[in-house]
Amino acid sequence: MKVYFDNAATTPMRSEVIQSITQSMTYNYGNPSSLHGFGRTAKSALETARKSIAGYLNCEAQEIIFTSGGTESDNMVLRCAVKNLGVKTIISSRVEHHAVLNVLEDLEREGVNIRFVDLDQSGSPNLDHLEILLDLDDSLKLVSLMHINNEIGNLLDLDKVGILCKSKGAYFHTDAVQGVGHYLFDLKSQPIDFMAAAAHKFHGPKGIGFSFIRKNTGLDPFILGGPQERGLRAGTESVHNIVGLQKAIEIAYENLDEERDYILGLKKYFITKLKGLFPEAHFNGLSENLERSSYTVVNVGLPLENSKSQLLDFHLDIKGIACSKGSACQAGADSGSHVLNNLVRSDNIKKLPSLRFSFSFFNTKDEVDYVIQSLSELQK
Amino acid sequence: MKVYFDNAATTPMRSEVIQSITQSMTYNYGNPSSLHGFGRTAKSALETARKSIAGYLNCEAQEIIFTSGGTESDNMVLRCAVKNLGVKTIISSRVEHHAVLNVLEDLEREGVNIRFVDLDQSGSPNLDHLEILLDLDDSLKLVSLMHINNEIGNLLDLDKVGILCKSKGAYFHTDAVQGVGHYLFDLKSQPIDFMAAAAHKFHGPKGIGFSFIRKNTGLDPFILGGPQERGLRAGTESVHNIVGLQKAIEIAYENLDEERDYILGLKKYFITKLKGLFPEAHFNGLSENLERSSYTVVNVGLPLENSKSQLLDFHLDIKGIACSKGSACQAGADSGSHVLNNLVRSDNIKKLPSLRFSFSFFNTKDEVDYVIQSLSELQK
Repeated sequence: MKVYFDNAATTPMRSEVIQSITQSMTYNYGNPSSLHGFGRTAKSALETARKSIAGYLNCEAQEIIFTSGGTESDNMVLRCAVKNLGVKTIISSRVEHHAVLNVLEDLEREGVNIRFVDLDQSGSPNLDHLEILLDLDDSLKLVSLMHINNEIGNLLDLDKVGILCKSKGAYFHTDAVQGVGHYLFDLKSQPIDFMAAAAHKFHGPKGIGFSFIRKNTGLDPFILGGPQERGLRAGTESVHNIVGLQKAIEIAYENLDEERDYILGLKKYFITKLKGLFPEAHFNGLSENLERSSYTVVNVGLPLENSKSQLLDFHLDIKGIACSKGSACQAGADSGSHVLNNLVRSDNIKKLPSLRFSFSFFNTKDEVDYVIQSLSELQK
Repeated sequence: MKVYFDNAATTPMRSEVIQSITQSMTYNYGNPSSLHGFGRTAKSALETARKSIAGYLNCEAQEIIFTSGGTESDNMVLRCAVKNLGVKTIISSRVEHHAVLNVLEDLEREGVNIRFVDLDQSGSPNLDHLEILLDLDDSLKLVSLMHINNEIGNLLDLDKVGILCKSKGAYFHTDAVQGVGHYLFDLKSQPIDFMAAAAHKFHGPKGIGFSFIRKNTGLDPFILGGPQERGLRAGTESVHNIVGLQKAIEIAYENLDEERDYILGLKKYFITKLKGLFPEAHFNGLSENLERSSYTVVNVGLPLENSKSQLLDFHLDIKGIACSKGSACQAGADSGSHVLNNLVRSDNIKKLPSLRFSFSFFNTKDEVDYVIQSLSELQK
């Protein structure tokens, strides 16, 4: 049996998405910047996609700027906010994705003030401390906090943070890579200035995503060249991938309630079974809290003897089970997960091997049973 | 009839490429950074592609860094050469693609010395002047000159420029977006430090390309985040697109001689027919010179009365013929082509409406006849 419980790393593509992409590769091969018929056909596919995506997020089409993915989108917003908007201080957290953290480290070397908000016990930003940091001086600020933590699933209250930022005259950027396609957005009313998304986190293709850039914010492009994307992102658009992104977001939002309920059911079932097997299991972050964490993620420290613990990865892999230790983007890093390392946990808990299981609509209870069965074999 | 003579803007994807991509989307959906079986399968596809591509260019696999395309590749090399290598002066030409020119303009604002090499009558860089510019002072320099001009097809002697750069201790970057997949490279022996390529210019997918970065050059990433691409380019790799790029480059190089001869035959035929119809036609740049210009491009000023000239685009479009005025990336720009504007041409020639026709293996003599026939209707 093969079980893919690593949907926070990437998701299998829906067959409808694959079909759309294949069609687009065959028929939309013009360059959307070309003025002739072939170009106009590609341009029309591109703009139809933009409009559809904007519709699902309730923003304007011109506010969706296609990029190569979440990482580029984060890089773009953070760098251009400094370069074009005059942002002098960026407030973020130590449990952000490295697409944010590594840019901040670089910007700090270039003289930008970087401040990290305190985290509460569960690894969520302490909003009182955020307010203190926002009040610390008069410099123009940008707050960059992720919507859903990719490792522990903690959900951020975007409205609350956005309203706070607005009241202090700060910009608000959110890496919503784990949220788009899984949660509703209403960007006309939500006080968010910038947002990053990636298609491959919701059954779309890898290598395509977008930045939501609220209109009239005045960003210049991060990648310079031709006037594509209304001058905000140069380079011939990946039309087929964008068509795939459109199809993926359409299916995600048309079936959101049904799929969320189904996945949440799986998560509940998994937690119950896991607790039955390991009454001493420790759920990291808020991942056991069904309201305050993503319905797709469980991150758990398993009480296993040291000898079994060392076999854990190998054992699951042999069993055909895909899950993750940290994020895929730092898999294999010796230092372990920077997210878990930033959580307040007792030494005993820290010793437990932690695994992230992340679900999609394509998973089943049978798969959960198989994973639980496989884990139980380690206890023998 | 529909005739696509705009292959320098983008090329139709080969059916074998579409098939590879479709297969990869279905079977390689793991994240190549994940350590489990699904991840390893994707990683294996990724590294097999890298090795194959490197083989065709005779470089090492680690020297191929996948990016979202030629534009990102140019941005990456130019910015990182300044930031990481300490380059103080960049020498380029005024007929480069905007993916280079616009970055240079930005770098100049940041204090980098930008110098432009003189062009000869035909729009090619004057290498004597390049040598003068290289000798002008002791600052660390990078030369950025494109392999094939995307509008007029002029071919640069990469070896000659590279040897000159090397003798002066300067880095050499070439935007080879129009060359890769159409001309042979032997990067182990060619004195090139950096090179940019894009799959969609040789029947591959849009939104994927690579930077050739000679090993041990010491560049840091332009897009920061996870440790993908050996730490040189963050962001989950677009595995299916990379597999498509691999297939496109394989077919291109396995059939290079046959396809080049065929396309060159079409170009010759087109030029002959065009001259028959318009004895006063003016070929821009070197595009009439079969040795010194790309076999894929003809750029021609047509001696038409003003009234006909204004109808030209419309007439061709109605006839289903796709060609281009400048590059697709600046289509619709009022200022006209910066490449043509930088050519030394008489006022009479400047007045002629210029068109770029660019061919692929999928074009035919019948299509040439149809285009000639359609142009002849304008003369009536």
